[in-house]
Amino acid sequence: MLVVMNVHATQEQLERVCEEIRQAGLSPHPIPGSQRTAVGITGDKGAIDPERLQQLPGVVKVIRVTDPYKLVGREFKPDETVIELNGMNIGGERLVVMAGPCAVESREQLMEAAHAVKEAGATVLRGGAFKPRTSPYNFQGLGESGLKILAQAREETGLMIVTETIDPENVTLVEAYADILQVGARNMQNFSLLKRVGKSKRPVLLKRGISATLDEFLMAAEYVMSEGNYNVILCERGVRTFNNYTRFTMDLSTIPEVKRVSHLPIIVDPSHATGKRDMVIPMARAAIAAGADGIMVEVHPNPDEALSDGYQSLTPESFAQLMVEMRALSAALGRQL
Amino acid sequence: MLVVMNVHATQEQLERVCEEIRQAGLSPHPIPGSQRTAVGITGDKGAIDPERLQQLPGVVKVIRVTDPYKLVGREFKPDETVIELNGMNIGGERLVVMAGPCAVESREQLMEAAHAVKEAGATVLRGGAFKPRTSPYNFQGLGESGLKILAQAREETGLMIVTETIDPENVTLVEAYADILQVGARNMQNFSLLKRVGKSKRPVLLKRGISATLDEFLMAAEYVMSEGNYNVILCERGVRTFNNYTRFTMDLSTIPEVKRVSHLPIIVDPSHATGKRDMVIPMARAAIAAGADGIMVEVHPNPDEALSDGYQSLTPESFAQLMVEMRALSAALGRQL
Amino acid sequence: MLVVMNVHATQEQLERVCEEIRQAGLSPHPIPGSQRTAVGITGDKGAIDPERLQQLPGVVKVIRVTDPYKLVGREFKPDETVIELNGMNIGGERLVVMAGPCAVESREQLMEAAHAVKEAGATVLRGGAFKPRTSPYNFQGLGESGLKILAQAREETGLMIVTETIDPENVTLVEAYADILQVGARNMQNFSLLKRVGKSKRPVLLKRGISATLDEFLMAAEYVMSEGNYNVILCERGVRTFNNYTRFTMDLSTIPEVKRVSHLPIIVDPSHATGKRDMVIPMARAAIAAGADGIMVEVHPNPDEALSDGYQSLTPESFAQLMVEMRALSAALGRQL
Amino acid sequence: MLVVMNVHATQEQLERVCEEIRQAGLSPHPIPGSQRTAVGITGDKGAIDPERLQQLPGVVKVIRVTDPYKLVGREFKPDETVIELNGMNIGGERLVVMAGPCAVESREQLMEAAHAVKEAGATVLRGGAFKPRTSPYNFQGLGESGLKILAQAREETGLMIVTETIDPENVTLVEAYADILQVGARNMQNFSLLKRVGKSKRPVLLKRGISATLDEFLMAAEYVMSEGNYNVILCERGVRTFNNYTRFTMDLSTIPEVKRVSHLPIIVDPSHATGKRDMVIPMARAAIAAGADGIMVEVHPNPDEALSDGYQSLTPESFAQLMVEMRALSAALGRQL
Repeated sequence: MLVVMNVHATQEQLERVCEEIRQAGLSPHPIPGSQRTAVGITGDKGAIDPERLQQLPGVVKVIRVTDPYKLVGREFKPDETVIELNGMNIGGERLVVMAGPCAVESREQLMEAAHAVKEAGATVLRGGAFKPRTSPYNFQGLGESGLKILAQAREETGLMIVTETIDPENVTLVEAYADILQVGARNMQNFSLLKRVGKSKRPVLLKRGISATLDEFLMAAEYVMSEGNYNVILCERGVRTFNNYTRFTMDLSTIPEVKRVSHLPIIVDPSHATGKRDMVIPMARAAIAAGADGIMVEVHPNPDEALSDGYQSLTPESFAQLMVEMRALSAALGRQL
Repeated sequence: MLVVMNVHATQEQLERVCEEIRQAGLSPHPIPGSQRTAVGITGDKGAIDPERLQQLPGVVKVIRVTDPYKLVGREFKPDETVIELNGMNIGGERLVVMAGPCAVESREQLMEAAHAVKEAGATVLRGGAFKPRTSPYNFQGLGESGLKILAQAREETGLMIVTETIDPENVTLVEAYADILQVGARNMQNFSLLKRVGKSKRPVLLKRGISATLDEFLMAAEYVMSEGNYNVILCERGVRTFNNYTRFTMDLSTIPEVKRVSHLPIIVDPSHATGKRDMVIPMARAAIAAGADGIMVEVHPNPDEALSDGYQSLTPESFAQLMVEMRALSAALGRQL
Repeated sequence: MLVVMNVHATQEQLERVCEEIRQAGLSPHPIPGSQRTAVGITGDKGAIDPERLQQLPGVVKVIRVTDPYKLVGREFKPDETVIELNGMNIGGERLVVMAGPCAVESREQLMEAAHAVKEAGATVLRGGAFKPRTSPYNFQGLGESGLKILAQAREETGLMIVTETIDPENVTLVEAYADILQVGARNMQNFSLLKRVGKSKRPVLLKRGISATLDEFLMAAEYVMSEGNYNVILCERGVRTFNNYTRFTMDLSTIPEVKRVSHLPIIVDPSHATGKRDMVIPMARAAIAAGADGIMVEVHPNPDEALSDGYQSLTPESFAQLMVEMRALSAALGRQL
Repeated sequence: MLVVMNVHATQEQLERVCEEIRQAGLSPHPIPGSQRTAVGITGDKGAIDPERLQQLPGVVKVIRVTDPYKLVGREFKPDETVIELNGMNIGGERLVVMAGPCAVESREQLMEAAHAVKEAGATVLRGGAFKPRTSPYNFQGLGESGLKILAQAREETGLMIVTETIDPENVTLVEAYADILQVGARNMQNFSLLKRVGKSKRPVLLKRGISATLDEFLMAAEYVMSEGNYNVILCERGVRTFNNYTRFTMDLSTIPEVKRVSHLPIIVDPSHATGKRDMVIPMARAAIAAGADGIMVEVHPNPDEALSDGYQSLTPESFAQLMVEMRALSAALGRQL
């Protein structure tokens, strides 16, 4: 931490800042400049609140030097996290493809989707049984019967299941059926939910909040990890900007940045990010080219009939086409699909 | 709803769009133009998903004409909602001032703050017992013992209590102590929580999410109201933008807009919006001048010692100064404090 | 400036950083911490590019401590700038009101508007003769004949004239007629234009770019001042965010922040910020309550006939109403109108 | 255009709206609904200002149905624009790579960069002779002597030259030396400059403004084209958002969207978008995978010595590596480099 003093700060004000730092069990290091003085802070025993320093007389600003996260950071764990699940790896060389309908609507719909994505090469089946919707009047999901249909699809196809869980109480139900627990973008800072999935044995797919900074995103993962669950998969799904031709703005530079500061795997969801079927394939390609560890896309056997987000769902045919392109791309990029 | 066809759309494509509309129990009204055709949709019995239309061949875009909300809208209830609580009104002519520390830290701290804000003229005491924090390593609140201290402060001062509730299970505990249930910005789309407070008898203070559109904000209130709780107080507390000299960007134009489209009262929280003590007074003045029904500000007996958000808390002295300015302003604006 | 080293940085890497700093004529101050070392930089003779340091091996980040601006800063000039113009002050105790149509359309239209705003109490007449428009097919202004009409209005009413200038060549023409040169939001970083108005004897009204940070806004003013023209009036007119119910989002917290870091006067334009007639009055009130030194609003004798931005123009009657409210407010705030 | 009436609108108000539409030479089509009436507008002879309608009594909102641009649109010209320049194509199957230093600093520096990028496979050399800088105290470019150095580099290497022009007067100078005129992001709505380059015979590289909507971006191109210059290359270079780990947020979904609505070629500048050397290669790959027609990257023979934006420049070695990866990628994507 560095405390920057006002050009007119008095010696008494400087001394008070140093005293506060000492009382917190840390060491102050005044650096007198030609115009103003700054005070560096060192020590690992104590802790001090930057905002407390900020309001002391004579202080212009306080600059935090270290990152707020620990367990998610690459300084904590230099090697990339690879999550093993039923003999499949998420993270590392191999790309993961999660596909399926936005919501489970019926046994027929899900089975058809499951067989189609399995055949084209996906390894994880997505599908919501509990759907957080902006309007209370929209379809909210089939609930537990949706989870049962997902479990049947796993049995029939061997695909693993990822599905969303929406509150702490709900986790117990969802983890009884799912292989991967999804925390949605709107719940990225639902800390009660994060703590609860942090106690689960299931890996957690954590979607980035629509206006989360990277620090906030990583701190949400830190909540899960700090409860003991180290198997977190990050998912970029677009952030809110002034752009109005996509539902959200996909922020692909988050991928190399996450790779630099964290060891966690990161995948991308181009369906929700763009909200437009025609953009899913080019943006899925772009995500992989930027270094993502996989994608999550919506596929519906009959998108025109979908009860939720049909407009952004691929048909089974275009999903098969996407997989062909992904294979060519992953080869060119030295990765495996 | 209006469906805009491509300039090259065929008669068959147009007919298919009309057929879909009819099948949904609604009436299509084709409007042939010089270049392209649009189709208006009318009827109140059926319902149709705009995204379903959007993907039909020949359709360029679908434009939603009506607002998504019902109960929160002024077309549903033309008169302003005034919430009566212990003989006090929220909404209407009189401005409400909610003040107190960010977090309850101790009996002494809260009592000192409570007496100070009471004396200066506040009628509601704020103070968090459960604190949603970005980092799992930061102070998370005193929990139930914090709620008990709040209840004691009510007994001693006659102030009403507003405090945050963080998940559905937690509501039962909080509503046993608080007069007003606060749903924080991070939980604005925690729909499980919204439904639960919608079943409570306590009024709900709903904070705007940091990147919520006005529609999303109002739809969150709609969730609460659709469960039967019509006493919702909206609270603008800043949105996330590129600005970096305030923590968030206070969006005061939301006030006249909410007044135009909704009947619900709206207050403003300049402490969290700006994150800077020096800005609280000018921005509180601005909020009232823009037409807000009240303010919520942080006051701490000793801000330098605060465990949470101390840097943005007013001292009791500056809060008293704020109240003096608010009185002058409200008189000039024809309102009462 | 502070250089933060990697936790694994070697002694050689640290030494190289110090050497670079010394070669730039400055002094390095290593601050060894428990985990990592930081290097403070002091000295006033030399200068070093932070980006050059940032790429040295072992460096994590470089933190700039001082502000980039000089002439606009309060550390350079502690007293508020008050611009005198024909015996009127801009800045200081008195509020300035600039009003008039978006564009000069005809002699009749402008004269009618000029008399109306004069009578209600405005002291500066606005009106565009050169209009930057998003579309090349929209009305682009009357050009020099518009300037002549403005000069006639000054003669008839005694109002001062503010009008926009759009490129360096155009300045010579505009400064022959106008009292204040306006630089529009789209040209805030048109540096050729800024340098040219910096050589003018006329005060400059500088509008904030729609996505300008405060530093960029102040650096644009610095461009003008660095050419010798110290009479700069800043104007907040909304920034671009995800909000869609106003054209831009008025960022009123910029007012107390500008007052803190700069000595320049700042006014607000609620007409362009909101784009909605109904919001102009509440947001003008809010701006003044936040501490602005004045407002600029659009008034058109017949807004329904306006060739440009009619929807956001006040009628003469509502402008008169605004002035009544402004007088009450300014009295309550201890300012003069 | 569609006019939506209030649920309480009277028959007189409806009639007035229809009358306004008729007076503008267009035809009104009232669509009575169960709750409210909407009025469709058709006709191609007249024109009506949506804002004029918006303020009529009883009108809730006016919805624009058609796009504002003409010449840039795919409905105007269905085939992709391919710009031929010295036997090279920009747009179409082949990808273009523009590379070189941010600013021309000296003959030696530029020649070294030119030979390096030529050898690795670039076909266009970039380098600024006139540099728009946020601070008036920063290096502003070598001016005409910089242009002369660029011309020498063309002679020596056969590379084409793209360089920025900063105001209308300056265009005459720059077009005497450059093959492609660059309009920078800060000048995207400098309409005087757009009109001037619209009269030039040189192709124009138009960078997206940092907060330009897609419509504004395309309307800027429309300005150039409406003056007769149809050779416009669009360039996405990041937009301003709340993200703070990249200088701007690269908005790659703009690529498929531009391809859908316009016939103009679009390239991407990952150097300015990210501001970080380590991100240039992954984001260049992502841009190509998303369908961009080329890239523009900064390469400096000695980035540590660069006078401008050194931190984001690639070394010649990493640029050569980028070209290797681009070749593999373009083969996988069915394009040529």
